[in-house]
Order: sequence, then C-alpha cells, then structure tokens
Amino acid sequence: MQTAVIRELFKQSDKHLGKSIRVHGWVRTVRVSKSFGFIELNDGTFFANLQVVFEENLDNFAEVARLVTGSAITVTGTLVESPGAKQPFELKAESIEVVGTCAPDYPLQKKRHTFEFLRTIAHLRPRTNTFAAVFRVRSLAAFAIHKFFQERNFVYVHTPVITGSDAEGAGEMFRVTTLDFDRTPRNEAGQVDFTRDFFGRETGLTVSGQLEAETYCQAFGRVYTFGPTFRAENSHTPRHAAEFWMIEPEIAFADLQDDMRLAEDMMKYVIGYVLDNAPEEMDFFNKFVDKSLLARLANVLQSDFGHVTYTEAIDILKNAPEKFEYPVEWGADLQTEHERYLAEKHMQKPVFVTDYPKQIKAFYMRLNDDQKTVAAMDLLVPGVGEIIGGSQREERLAYLEQRMAELGLSHEDYWWYLDLRKYGGTKHAGFGLGFERLIMYLTGMGNIRDVISFPRTPKNAEF
Amino acid sequence: MQTAVIRELFKQSDKHLGKSIRVHGWVRTVRVSKSFGFIELNDGTFFANLQVVFEENLDNFAEVARLVTGSAITVTGTLVESPGAKQPFELKAESIEVVGTCAPDYPLQKKRHTFEFLRTIAHLRPRTNTFAAVFRVRSLAAFAIHKFFQERNFVYVHTPVITGSDAEGAGEMFRVTTLDFDRTPRNEAGQVDFTRDFFGRETGLTVSGQLEAETYCQAFGRVYTFGPTFRAENSHTPRHAAEFWMIEPEIAFADLQDDMRLAEDMMKYVIGYVLDNAPEEMDFFNKFVDKSLLARLANVLQSDFGHVTYTEAIDILKNAPEKFEYPVEWGADLQTEHERYLAEKHMQKPVFVTDYPKQIKAFYMRLNDDQKTVAAMDLLVPGVGEIIGGSQREERLAYLEQRMAELGLSHEDYWWYLDLRKYGGTKHAGFGLGFERLIMYLTGMGNIRDVISFPRTPKNAEF
Repeated sequence: MQTAVIRELFKQSDKHLGKSIRVHGWVRTVRVSKSFGFIELNDGTFFANLQVVFEENLDNFAEVARLVTGSAITVTGTLVESPGAKQPFELKAESIEVVGTCAPDYPLQKKRHTFEFLRTIAHLRPRTNTFAAVFRVRSLAAFAIHKFFQERNFVYVHTPVITGSDAEGAGEMFRVTTLDFDRTPRNEAGQVDFTRDFFGRETGLTVSGQLEAETYCQAFGRVYTFGPTFRAENSHTPRHAAEFWMIEPEIAFADLQDDMRLAEDMMKYVIGYVLDNAPEEMDFFNKFVDKSLLARLANVLQSDFGHVTYTEAIDILKNAPEKFEYPVEWGADLQTEHERYLAEKHMQKPVFVTDYPKQIKAFYMRLNDDQKTVAAMDLLVPGVGEIIGGSQREERLAYLEQRMAELGLSHEDYWWYLDLRKYGGTKHAGFGLGFERLIMYLTGMGNIRDVISFPRTPKNAEF
Repeated sequence: MQTAVIRELFKQSDKHLGKSIRVHGWVRTVRVSKSFGFIELNDGTFFANLQVVFEENLDNFAEVARLVTGSAITVTGTLVESPGAKQPFELKAESIEVVGTCAPDYPLQKKRHTFEFLRTIAHLRPRTNTFAAVFRVRSLAAFAIHKFFQERNFVYVHTPVITGSDAEGAGEMFRVTTLDFDRTPRNEAGQVDFTRDFFGRETGLTVSGQLEAETYCQAFGRVYTFGPTFRAENSHTPRHAAEFWMIEPEIAFADLQDDMRLAEDMMKYVIGYVLDNAPEEMDFFNKFVDKSLLARLANVLQSDFGHVTYTEAIDILKNAPEKFEYPVEWGADLQTEHERYLAEKHMQKPVFVTDYPKQIKAFYMRLNDDQKTVAAMDLLVPGVGEIIGGSQREERLAYLEQRMAELGLSHEDYWWYLDLRKYGGTKHAGFGLGFERLIMYLTGMGNIRDVISFPRTPKNAEF
C-alpha cells in the first residue's frame, strides 16, 4: 500500500481517489458522535488539513474517539469524494493506529495564542497555522534565492563565520574564544595573550561576508553568499536580531546600475516563486496578518522600482507634509521613519535611494565624481524600510588606500582585499539582503522574532 | 551589442557564431607574434578558456601585446569557427579594452604551485584551474542538496548558530561572548557572572542543529538544515576543520531503514547532479587529482550501498589480512583506518555500519531491543571514511530520560527536547552529512583546507 503525504493528495487528488492509502499525521481536532467521527489531520506538508472519517466498525473506536489535539496517528483507508461542501475529498478510515499520544497539558489547545506567548514555546509554534506558514515561506524563499542565482551562473560561496577581520570597519562583534576567564593567559605587559587563543589571534563572528565574497567574485565573475551574520548590538526593536541570515551577491565588470537591476530582478523572482509555490499560505497571511499583502506584492511584480538620489530624498523629506521625530539634514543617515515615508507614502512601491554622503557609508564604496557622495544604494520597501544595502565598490587602489587612511584602517588587516585592486581589478558591485526582513516583507509579519526559528536577541538564547 | 559569458558560448555556440559580441574576462596567457596574437581568456563562468585572436589593426595593439597573466579586459568581436584543432571557435577581436592591469609581482604565474603555497593566498587561489573546479563543484553540490530536499517536500530550517545548549552532550565548543577579559563581571562568590553577558547566560557556537531540527520535524514531517557548525578541537588532520558546513535532514514517522534509504538517495542524486552539471571540472579532477574518481563515482551510482552491523564489522576487521594501528575490539569506536578498510577493501563501495554499542554513541539514539546497541548508522565511503552519521532517535520518553540520567544530563537544559516525546511524538530519524567531506569525496581532493574558501583550523583564521 502506498504511503502518501497530504500535499500530494490535495495537489493530485485524481491520482488517489478511490485508492487505498496510508497517511501519517498529527490530529488538529476531533469531532465525535455516537457512531462516527471526523479528524482534521495535518502532516506538515500542506497548509490545509485532511478530513478523516471513522466509524464504529473501527477496532479501536473508543481509543480514537478519545484522541486529543496534538496526537500522532497513522491512518489507512480509501480516499473518497466528500459529501460535505467544505472539502473536496476525505479519507475513509479502515484502521487508525495511535502512534504518539499527547499529554493533557499540551499548550497548543484550539484557541488563539499571542505571538509573545508562542515565542516562549518556539519548539512547538511551527505546529500552528501562522508559524507553519511563515516557516514554509521561509524555506521556499531560501530555495528561490539559490535557484535565481544558480540559473544565472552565480557561484555560491561559503564565506567564513569566524573571522579576524571586521568587514564594516565599525561593526559590533561577538568574540569567539576558547580562553578561560579565570585563567586568562597574559603577556609580560599584563595584556591578554591572544596568541594563545584557539586561532592564535582575536576572532569574532562575521558581520558580513562581502570582503571575502569580493575575492571570489574576481575569480568567478558572479558569486553570492547565503549564510548567518551577527551583530552584538543591544537593539530591542522588532527589526533587529543578534543572529540573522544574509544574502550577498557580488558581480564583476558591473556598476551600480547593474547592481540595482540585479536586486530588482531577484526581488521579483522570489516574490513570484513564493506566490506560485505557497498560494495557501499567502492567502492566509492576506486574511489574518496583513490584508493589503497580496495587493502590495502584485503591485511590486508589475511596477518598476523607484529611483531617487539621497540628495533628492532629503528634499522630498524636507517638503513632506509630515512631522518626523528625527531631523532631516543632508549628511545625516535616514531613519526608519524617513525610509518608510519614502517607500510607503511618497513612492508607494519599493525605491532605491542612491549616492549617499561618503561620511555615513562604508570605506569600500566607490567615490563619485562629486567627491562628496559614494555609489551606494539602499532598497526601501513599504512596511519594512531598508531591506537591501549595496554599492559599487572602490576598485581604484589609490582612492581606496586614501579612504582607509582617513578612517585609520590598517593596510596589514586588509592586505588581501587591497590585492584585488592590484591584480586585474575590475569595476564591481554587490549588495546585502537581510533574509529575515525579506520574510517579514513577504508574509506581513511585524516582528523579526517571529520569522526566525529560534531568535537570538539581547538576554535571549533559549533553545 | 550583446554581452555574453563564456559558458554560454561553449554551451550554445551555434547561437553566437558569426555574431558580434562583447566578453569580459581575465587573461590567462598571451602569445604574440609580430602582427597578431592569441589570448586565453577566462571569465569564471566556465572551466575552459575562450581563445581571443587579435591583429595589428587593433588601435592599442602594442598595449594588448604587453598584457600579462591576470589582467582584466573587455573584448568586442565576432565569434568565428577556429582553424585550429584545439578549440571549436574563437573570438576575433575588433577592440580590446584593458580594464584592470596586473602588477608584476602577481603570484599566480603560469607554473605549478603547491596546494600548501596556494593556501597562503586563499584570496587568489580560486583563479587557478584546480580551485575554480573545486569551488564550482562545491556550489553545484550545495544547490543539488537543496533541490533534492525541496523536490521531496522537505522544509529548510535555519537552526541557531549561537546556542546555550550542547547538542552532543560532549562537544568541544567555542565560547561566544561580549564580556571583557580585563573587566569581567563577577558574582559574590567570585565566579564570572554570565547573567551580564550579551545573552544573559553562557553561550557557544553550535556543534549540531539536530535537536532544534527535531522540533521542526515534529511539525513539518520532513525538514533539513544546511548551515555552519563548529568544533573547538585541536585536531591537525587533513579531515578536520574548526568551522564546517553540515546538512541535517530529519524525518518523522520513519525508522533507521528509511533514514538509510534517504541518505543513499541523496548521495546518488548529488553525484548525478554534479556529473551532469560540471563534466569539464570532473574530467579535470579525474586527470589531475584522482585517476580513479569517475570510475568510482559511476560505480556508486550503479550499485546498492552495503550494509553491515557494527558487530559484523568488528568480525570482518578481526579477520582482515591487515595490521591496524588501533586495536579492534567490540565496544571501541572505529578508527579511520578501520572505516577505510571496510569501505575501500572489503566492500569496495559505500557501506552503512549500523547498530553501534550505546556507550560510544550520543544519548538521543534509540536503544535496540538487545539493550546494548542503538539504532545508529554511519556511512563510510572509499577515500574519505565516515561521511554521514545518523540514527533513529529515542522517541520513548522513559528510555530517553533514563539515558540522560545515566549520563548526567539535566532535565532543565533539555525540557523542550523532552516535550517532543510528550506531545504527539513519533518514530523519527535523521543524519548529519559533513559537507566538506562530501566535496572531498566528489573531487578527490585530499585535504579539507582545500575545499573550504577560507579554512579555520587551530592557529589559523587568516582572511
């Protein structure tokens, strides 16, 4: 007899109707009358439940009738058309084996739970509709990203997580060490002797794989990373986590325009893929999480992303009929409220802001001819704000060295990065996409803690 | 005019022959006579070089004639059939723009370099044939793994990298901290006060995402992880790194047999995908790295993997006509020499060794009815040894609690893991595949340092 998953039954019911099949799954609800009952069964492969019908001819009718939410069962039976209007078919049970019982203190009883409560049982929350949908979309979006880049001849690079370098020159990094706080080795001057640490030097968790990705870009022409990155920032916002995943493509023989085209193509591809492959989940979000979600995503697929320079953006904000908490001034970084105004109210679609003042951007960004701004771009999207940050990189050795000197960055720490400008350097560009922010954008979920399986934030590393 | 990548020219030359195109790339070699010259051009998208022909009618003939290995150029010209026998077509240049010159101290001159030397210039080594091939295969294999699982309805889960728990109960973990060695907060008893560390507790880098993956498995039925894992082991072997990537699928309603079937299917799928998508690279490895590679992989695709129990394996080893350095004794772990003998000499193909003594395996593995062994499996492959380790998990709460008590593992640290056995627990199983070992197996490369972009090993975290 064939074991089937519930997704298959829904997607190809014709193939299974009238056939005897076996299905495993977890009980969502049971309704029982004297001589028969219904089980809503979910096996995790599909958003909807399979209706199982059982009758008193079942050997263990009494046991099955007492099943509670959360129990694991194996059902053997025939898939038949359903007389009810609510579902197209149902599984008429010939036998039901109780595989795993569920203790009465099971926290996921059939009632609404707050997202805050569900974070305290992050090991169980993927069993709920909302989180099943979030984490299926997350999985599909991750695959869509790989598919997008692989189809375009990009090489996937695993850049290191443990690093001796600080890519941004200003990141707040976690230390990685095997030294003991109680018996810390010291040198003659009394300082901690990191030559005796595991790697023989100070190391931390990476804030970005970009610099390493650039080295591979200059070999393969087109590369991308997709891995975890870290910030030891004491941020308590709904958009910041200490550990998150980032995608960082890097393209050679390319400028900022190519970079933005790539970002726009990628965003549209991922949105399209998720809408095609998780229509049930996306409908659910649209109904219960964010009623404008599907309209907004459809709008993104159909429209060209906006483009404004930072200088234009400052003008727009200064003339905006809004009061902002933070002042708007050329030279200051845009705050979330500014970013959201630009994307949500002014443009009403995703918008690239380009050519930021060099003072507020990283050392590796390419200096524009005005000598004041750099070839940077941020992609702002309605509902989330900044989702992508990128730039054309400074490929001119003299300019790069000058900028590093201004910022006090040492040649010694970046010798290999500078080498790229000495040996067949090319124009090149890239960007970083915060994967969790993408998932928030795709699902309408408002808190980053609800789109990461086990979020890490200040004072929280449970599970 | 169309910009083309070299892969496209080789894969679909018909489409481009006779057309005017633009190609970017890096010079591998230049040969010049008085009035014309040849450039071997590589753009990183394809293993083979494109031959570019230029003649003295070029505006900058003298500049081009002086180009050195490693320079970046943009060529415009017509793709024509080649009179030479060595290549099917060549690009007749109408213009060549020098995009990036290459300094004379470029370390990658046209001569053989040792792998040891190339490790010291890990930022440049992907520009060599060997490492271009290794890292393209690595990228393709990563995608093949995602494709395999996604096609089978598995959900990809990002389990946390920073963790408060030690999955194996015995791993050597890196500490992750923001505390200062010089001003370490102490409690009244003089101990380090980790409640004042970033996460409010002691945290380290994960050694496995399995326990967290199990929580998602009990929601989605089939899940997999693919992420970095860490060991703070002072190992100096060619097979160990401090940071490596691991794939950990986990399947519900499944036993050890299902687990081994999944592992075998996955291995064959990945091998097939890489052979199909990187034939040039695989031919190269077969010629220059391991002359038996293609025959061995073909053999794997065609044969069923072997199966022996640990107890049978001990008998085989005891009767082997070999002297082993480490003694063979029931109850002791198999050493690499034993594993390689079993796979390479005895079975001459990949072999699963199952049902190990419980003492040498992790606490979560399911106890067999003999009360002495557990439902574990290791997959051993010729040339590498252990590449996969997996097991059916102990789903019976009482057994799991007893084993944890024997090993002194606290209920408090694992409350959420135990919950899975209380709330609709099912038979389930999974395994971990060391991604770098897979790449070694696929390429014939002998040192893990040569299949990771920037390897992390004791005393080494350069780049």
